Amino acid sequence: MTNTTRALAEFLAELRYEDIPDAVLDRCEELFLDWLGSALAGKDYAPIPIFERFALLMGPHAGKSEILTLRTSTSPYFAAFVNAAASHVVEQDDLHNSSVLHPGTVVFPAVLAAAQAEGKSGRELIVAAVAGYEAGIRIGESLGRSHYTIFHTTGTVGTLAAAVGVGKLLGFSSDDFMHALGSAGTQAAGLWEFLRDGADSKQLHTAKAAADGLLAAYMTADGLTGAQRILDGKQGMAAGMSQDADPVCLADQLGKRWALIETSFKFHASCRHTHPAADALLAVMKREGLNHSDIAAVVTPVHQAAIDVLGPVNEPSTVHQAKFSMGTVLGLIAVHGKAGLEEFQTHALKDEEVAVFRRLVTMRLDPEVNEAYPSKWIGKVEVTTQNGQVHQATVRDPKGDPENTLSRTELEHKFRRLVGFSGAVDESESKQLVAFSWGLRELDSLPMLLTHA
Amino acid sequence: MTNTTRALAEFLAELRYEDIPDAVLDRCEELFLDWLGSALAGKDYAPIPIFERFALLMGPHAGKSEILTLRTSTSPYFAAFVNAAASHVVEQDDLHNSSVLHPGTVVFPAVLAAAQAEGKSGRELIVAAVAGYEAGIRIGESLGRSHYTIFHTTGTVGTLAAAVGVGKLLGFSSDDFMHALGSAGTQAAGLWEFLRDGADSKQLHTAKAAADGLLAAYMTADGLTGAQRILDGKQGMAAGMSQDADPVCLADQLGKRWALIETSFKFHASCRHTHPAADALLAVMKREGLNHSDIAAVVTPVHQAAIDVLGPVNEPSTVHQAKFSMGTVLGLIAVHGKAGLEEFQTHALKDEEVAVFRRLVTMRLDPEVNEAYPSKWIGKVEVTTQNGQVHQATVRDPKGDPENTLSRTELEHKFRRLVGFSGAVDESESKQLVAFSWGLRELDSLPMLLTHA
Repeated sequence: MTNTTRALAEFLAELRYEDIPDAVLDRCEELFLDWLGSALAGKDYAPIPIFERFALLMGPHAGKSEILTLRTSTSPYFAAFVNAAASHVVEQDDLHNSSVLHPGTVVFPAVLAAAQAEGKSGRELIVAAVAGYEAGIRIGESLGRSHYTIFHTTGTVGTLAAAVGVGKLLGFSSDDFMHALGSAGTQAAGLWEFLRDGADSKQLHTAKAAADGLLAAYMTADGLTGAQRILDGKQGMAAGMSQDADPVCLADQLGKRWALIETSFKFHASCRHTHPAADALLAVMKREGLNHSDIAAVVTPVHQAAIDVLGPVNEPSTVHQAKFSMGTVLGLIAVHGKAGLEEFQTHALKDEEVAVFRRLVTMRLDPEVNEAYPSKWIGKVEVTTQNGQVHQATVRDPKGDPENTLSRTELEHKFRRLVGFSGAVDESESKQLVAFSWGLRELDSLPMLLTHA
Repeated sequence: MTNTTRALAEFLAELRYEDIPDAVLDRCEELFLDWLGSALAGKDYAPIPIFERFALLMGPHAGKSEILTLRTSTSPYFAAFVNAAASHVVEQDDLHNSSVLHPGTVVFPAVLAAAQAEGKSGRELIVAAVAGYEAGIRIGESLGRSHYTIFHTTGTVGTLAAAVGVGKLLGFSSDDFMHALGSAGTQAAGLWEFLRDGADSKQLHTAKAAADGLLAAYMTADGLTGAQRILDGKQGMAAGMSQDADPVCLADQLGKRWALIETSFKFHASCRHTHPAADALLAVMKREGLNHSDIAAVVTPVHQAAIDVLGPVNEPSTVHQAKFSMGTVLGLIAVHGKAGLEEFQTHALKDEEVAVFRRLVTMRLDPEVNEAYPSKWIGKVEVTTQNGQVHQATVRDPKGDPENTLSRTELEHKFRRLVGFSGAVDESESKQLVAFSWGLRELDSLPMLLTHA
């Protein structure tokens, strides 16, 4: 049995700034800004204040790392904890398709907190984030589709991705990375069961993944040992938490393929499994000049994971749960033309026309879509009008996918919408944070972004 | 589908001190002393100082809860974290047979830390601990034997047991318990893979279980919601982490059967799967008047879980790993007459006679032993002497099992051995801690045990 975990660890240890292509550096800064916007958009959004109060109750009231939503400093552990919860709650953070991992919301909170605490540079932050993305994405791919049917990959794999990012900042050798992966993997957790009740676990998963991964890295640096085959050993993650794992993925084209650059930006403010269908519905309504009231039924041919994740949500009872309701997302698209933060907040639960449209929508497993998934997220809709006509549309690259990505201008617009939604920063700070992100690789050290002593 | 989780939550909410039989109160105090001894025995024992330093780096340097090994105060989260790691490292903490859960090392650190922080009484601590034991044991039983083949039940189920204990201290309703179980269960983690390398994950599992369970309870008290069917839902723990789960166990004889009192004290300082065979070997050597040099081979007929957990350990490279080596444990018994902390420290790795004996020992799956497990842990040995005679022995109730328990005098002896091993407390403090434990139910509030401002 070839030890692909070891190959991955050696790649991570040897990775240098100079090895990373410019396009990857560019995209990393873009993903950072996108993550920062998501974190700030989470200010005051339930249940984030619960995470903030827990950090204040259990953590130190000063330190070198900052809790962005509170503009206060604490230890790296609790900064990572709160920032990771906050950056996942409005469902606007990035997603990597074939791993079904949200890398940004677990990697950036951990590496930013550690970089601030350890006095690291912007370049070191970028290298650490690249390491976290490259490792996390390959680990997510290796655990296969069966893992995601029960486990929230961003919670489980996110723990290892965060550990790798922080480990890179701490200057890990390949042996260190092996131990850190072991200590992170044995903490990996996160079940989808909460979706059925619209419970608050999704942010708990990212908070714990970022903080626990950081813990694994710091304790490894202090000598804690971990299992050497946590991923593919007889009693490791694949054995216990997957039926179709493939350890070969762990070492897939290391140093040649840059998985970070395959990461998608979210355009709609909902679960990513709804995006392809949302884009297809937008396309067909525009092409046929349809109004929502013209439509009698919508069928969305989808992949199985969409049914697994969205299927438990029938009548959403919270705004967050509505983001996992295919009918609600398509209802917002049909009635309001988009499914952004404002549309969710204002219309997802309270708008009768959206509720009516929700009940017109059904998902159906589609062989072509299912086979292409998770490398490609194809969007299809079949719309039946009130007068009995049937219109179809297919979108092969949903908005935000690498083949149809957002420009820096579009990302700045999205950032302003995100921070405007919560009011976490003012216009002038917003501009500074954009400039900060676009100049990330030039910074000698990472200052506090919003917290001033 | 009957919701047995709900039945459990209602029992936990309604549980009152007056409902608990005297024998359970007595045993709870005994388990507390036994846990306290284990926690203090872990002082300075690798890797515990790594946990202590992490708590000092990431947590507050003062608070209402104490880190026993450091005699320093911090927040409940980090006190639970370090005390849980410390109390599992010398492998002398309690074990419940049929759930294969070590309840004390996850429940007591969490409830002691919270009770100190919240100004609770000795009675409230006892009720909380009873709640944690009763819930954790039933949850462990419900996840079945398949769970334990891959997952370290004390890590996974321990998170829920700790959450329940702290929730009881915080005055939870049955709805609160449902949410806390959801938030704890979705953090539940811990894989056996570390055993193959003798890595440090076993203490990481208990540390995280106690701290994460405490987190789930505190955040529930502040309004965080959790999955309502985290145990038996379609994407819950049983679905993802077991093949033979039985949710009926969750509500087994609530209020009639007191599972806490079924908990075993550990007599030998090794993995509990080695104890039945160790007792059987002691019995046969005494009965036949054998010396270790008389013995040519030992076969131990065991249950499958013993093979799963002990099988990966061939030549132990650390003292901790030696506690998971059946050959080493039987070697200590044969050569030195016991397998206590001192024997492990002095002889487990360095004694050539023990090493020779280790290679004479093999495990064999035994149908009778395997069928009785996990309700009964039967010990068997087949000893072949140098002159070709074969002697057998069977022990049905290993020393420390409820049917063959330790008296208070024996527990006091064990406590003195534990604290003497590490030197964590002096003679006078040792006496005070014994008196403290025997008078636990009379205390109006829980003072710091060893930390003085």
